[in-house]
Amino acid sequence: MLAQNNYGKSGIRLVKIHRRGENHDVTDLTVAVRFEGEFLAAHAFGDNADVLPTDTMKNTVYALAKSHSLHDIESFGLDLALHFLSRNPGVSCVSITLVEHLWERLTVAERPHPSAFRRAGEETRFASITRTHAGATVEAGLDGLTILKSTRSAFSGFRRDEFTTLQETRDRIFATAVAARWRYGGMDLPFKVVGRSVRQTLIETFAEHQSESVQHTLHAMGEAVLECHAEVDEIRLSLPNKHHILADLSPFGLTNQNEIFVATDAPYGLIEATVKRGV
Amino acid sequence: MLAQNNYGKSGIRLVKIHRRGENHDVTDLTVAVRFEGEFLAAHAFGDNADVLPTDTMKNTVYALAKSHSLHDIESFGLDLALHFLSRNPGVSCVSITLVEHLWERLTVAERPHPSAFRRAGEETRFASITRTHAGATVEAGLDGLTILKSTRSAFSGFRRDEFTTLQETRDRIFATAVAARWRYGGMDLPFKVVGRSVRQTLIETFAEHQSESVQHTLHAMGEAVLECHAEVDEIRLSLPNKHHILADLSPFGLTNQNEIFVATDAPYGLIEATVKRGV
Amino acid sequence: MLAQNNYGKSGIRLVKIHRRGENHDVTDLTVAVRFEGEFLAAHAFGDNADVLPTDTMKNTVYALAKSHSLHDIESFGLDLALHFLSRNPGVSCVSITLVEHLWERLTVAERPHPSAFRRAGEETRFASITRTHAGATVEAGLDGLTILKSTRSAFSGFRRDEFTTLQETRDRIFATAVAARWRYGGMDLPFKVVGRSVRQTLIETFAEHQSESVQHTLHAMGEAVLECHAEVDEIRLSLPNKHHILADLSPFGLTNQNEIFVATDAPYGLIEATVKRGV
Amino acid sequence: MLAQNNYGKSGIRLVKIHRRGENHDVTDLTVAVRFEGEFLAAHAFGDNADVLPTDTMKNTVYALAKSHSLHDIESFGLDLALHFLSRNPGVSCVSITLVEHLWERLTVAERPHPSAFRRAGEETRFASITRTHAGATVEAGLDGLTILKSTRSAFSGFRRDEFTTLQETRDRIFATAVAARWRYGGMDLPFKVVGRSVRQTLIETFAEHQSESVQHTLHAMGEAVLECHAEVDEIRLSLPNKHHILADLSPFGLTNQNEIFVATDAPYGLIEATVKRGV
Repeated sequence: MLAQNNYGKSGIRLVKIHRRGENHDVTDLTVAVRFEGEFLAAHAFGDNADVLPTDTMKNTVYALAKSHSLHDIESFGLDLALHFLSRNPGVSCVSITLVEHLWERLTVAERPHPSAFRRAGEETRFASITRTHAGATVEAGLDGLTILKSTRSAFSGFRRDEFTTLQETRDRIFATAVAARWRYGGMDLPFKVVGRSVRQTLIETFAEHQSESVQHTLHAMGEAVLECHAEVDEIRLSLPNKHHILADLSPFGLTNQNEIFVATDAPYGLIEATVKRGV
Repeated sequence: MLAQNNYGKSGIRLVKIHRRGENHDVTDLTVAVRFEGEFLAAHAFGDNADVLPTDTMKNTVYALAKSHSLHDIESFGLDLALHFLSRNPGVSCVSITLVEHLWERLTVAERPHPSAFRRAGEETRFASITRTHAGATVEAGLDGLTILKSTRSAFSGFRRDEFTTLQETRDRIFATAVAARWRYGGMDLPFKVVGRSVRQTLIETFAEHQSESVQHTLHAMGEAVLECHAEVDEIRLSLPNKHHILADLSPFGLTNQNEIFVATDAPYGLIEATVKRGV
Repeated sequence: MLAQNNYGKSGIRLVKIHRRGENHDVTDLTVAVRFEGEFLAAHAFGDNADVLPTDTMKNTVYALAKSHSLHDIESFGLDLALHFLSRNPGVSCVSITLVEHLWERLTVAERPHPSAFRRAGEETRFASITRTHAGATVEAGLDGLTILKSTRSAFSGFRRDEFTTLQETRDRIFATAVAARWRYGGMDLPFKVVGRSVRQTLIETFAEHQSESVQHTLHAMGEAVLECHAEVDEIRLSLPNKHHILADLSPFGLTNQNEIFVATDAPYGLIEATVKRGV
Repeated sequence: MLAQNNYGKSGIRLVKIHRRGENHDVTDLTVAVRFEGEFLAAHAFGDNADVLPTDTMKNTVYALAKSHSLHDIESFGLDLALHFLSRNPGVSCVSITLVEHLWERLTVAERPHPSAFRRAGEETRFASITRTHAGATVEAGLDGLTILKSTRSAFSGFRRDEFTTLQETRDRIFATAVAARWRYGGMDLPFKVVGRSVRQTLIETFAEHQSESVQHTLHAMGEAVLECHAEVDEIRLSLPNKHHILADLSPFGLTNQNEIFVATDAPYGLIEATVKRGV
């Protein structure tokens, strides 16, 4: 029995140059298209009559990007989803995921250059549109925002058992790579502006919070986003704990006063939660 | 409102050497532990009294590995899950994921060596245990099984629209990296033997199937697993289409009779489905 | 015959927090230590009497970081190299490579925060010190500086043969990830200041250059660095051509006026050269 | 002054299916082409008259692969190098690097399948051809051969200083990912056969050697290759020490008798040497 199925095209790499005279802008996206629907004949009998090739999905993304402003990725995703859903009768749900790679202008002679850019780093923004005949859901988020605070972070008073060797600490490094995903309450919002504001709220709360644990700060970050942004119904945060271990310098007659750390990749704590509006 | 939360330790790298005289075996695992439960106090108030440190989770994995045979990763995962669930009152669900990195004996003087090994490649096996007070679910799977067939693969008769430029073909390369995940119907099964047999069924079906599309072969693979393995209730397959594009040699006066291909990474088709037993 | 040998420790991850009251700074390094020398006895006979363990190299990096300001990585590397060379009689050459991962202050309430930081991206700076009893060489560089210009880039008038299908263009996207490595003429220079200036020269030349090819711009970048920085004797640049292919929209009745591009990873052009001062 | 320059195309992904009736073979290569030569006009003046586009290099690789057997990558590389060198007057040196990704036949009904394959893992073989008008050099090698031995490995009697905390051991895990590169003495050799034999010699020596250090075993591996293969003039080995740290179970009242290890990625020892024939 075919319980669920989906298919589509991932890794569609699209760059658009917007030219306004000498002033250019770059939009750099990785797009994924995904169909769900009634495709039993394709699976069970090899009948492709209802199967739009994933190559066509790719072509469509490039073709529709030509006339779209791409001002925000959410609205481009909504348009793509509508396009596919309205033309493919067997499809019950279209998902579009758009990851935006950010470029910032190079500074030349102390001024922003009109047509030369620098990749802004590994942090990406994304939007995820899910459209059925009943309506659309718009989610957005960011990934790879690596942040660190060197004070106001503690972890103490925790549960202990016979396998517990961890020392309590009232002063540690707290480093993480934020992955955040939030759901908007509407489809006609100033997504770009709100998205930037959500990001700033996450950053400011992280920086200022008197942290008793990753959970504690995660929750504060989620709550702050909901408090400041009526447009956001729900947010999920995933915070890997990028452990920085105090280097043991005592064999060398040195005292390490929270100065020298060994940065480690594995193992890592992983703390995740979803915060949403109460009813 | 805290809608959902989970925390744990990921990336716990464990190697155990089993010594029987001169004959050694290697078990090489990456383990992740994850708790869900009543942790509102930790999130909202920074009260860690019920929070077992993720460092303790890691210690526990190493300590319990000492006395466990690790004969199959499913049973080790079940034991770990039970250990954590029974000792942590606030926890409602424990998930353990174990990824196994395979080593095979080196061949020396045409015989398998007793204590020297080669990493068998990038293919990994995994088990995922989810345990609540109501019982446990055991899932297993494999990842990174990259396979290719050079015949018996077609894609034709598909839906077309104005953005369709893809040519129909009755003979193409079909290459994919299989990710499979299946759910067992019980907790006391010969997991290792069944797992190997599921893998072999996937491979044989892929090789022999007269493929009309990725969907078509995916479905045949899933059905074959369920038919041959009463122990498996459900299987999900995720098959990226690793496109091999026929190189265009016509500008050079050459005819490419399905011989020379450009292997590409992006974009890629992604076809996924879940097949389960009908009622 | 042992023709050459070297050994050492790589991947030493060091983070130092500099605390000046409430104001903190982060230095985040990956260090590698490498010895060359007379180690025939170790190789041929398993005699380790002259082999300082790589674990000791690691310990030394952490211990010496405690008292060093780390103001610039070049001077820390010079000190490390001297330490190892002066204490290990069998060693003829010590190389220290330091990769710096950059953090920038988070902006909170429109001001830079004293103790919260963001990883500045994938661009890294490095220094490479090579010290023998005859003296030391200081090289520095950067890696992963991904830049793009959307105008002033052409490629035409090139050599053609029967396998040439490339179209000439007077207006294309030029995108690359700069890897640069330069050699300083001295050991007592304001390395941090000069390094930043070299980087800015590379960026400005890239942005402003009327490019006839990657080679042409690479050479201009190298020459500009030498012209503006008497401290630099030689610079090597490695510029992968991150091809952006014009999407073919003609099958859909659309004209692509240098707007919509397919970003590709492979294959890629790779252009490298070393520019040094003439005699 | 332009001290050195090279340019070319990297990441050329080529798959060839060899069809002999129902029996197929797969050759899967990543090719890089690199020219060195007199290209001052291109660099200094943007004059591309002598610059063969890297796109043409790519086309040539696909076109020449059509008629070549690809039986061994060394001979294909030699042909490519000769093709480019003989037709491009400004070029003084052509380098061709070919990385081979290995596929092995799937086993179906206990027999090797004629047209279905599995990627054999992350281990790759390569050849590197350097051709000037004076002649050609053929180097070959392998990369990513990850091997481990659980006995016959010690590290003791090493040099100590005040930063040494490492314990001596007579029984440890020795794990590494072999990168080997050897130079052939001729251009008309059975490269495939010799290459496999070199690999087997490396493996057997690693497995059997009574190791006093990584250096000790590296040297034995290199010497064994030279002793058994008159075709090989020189071999360079690069062996990262993939440390497996004994897990400390003593806080839990357990004795770890060389059974439970923490596999680590960083930091890592890196041991390299070149062994060549004495004169």
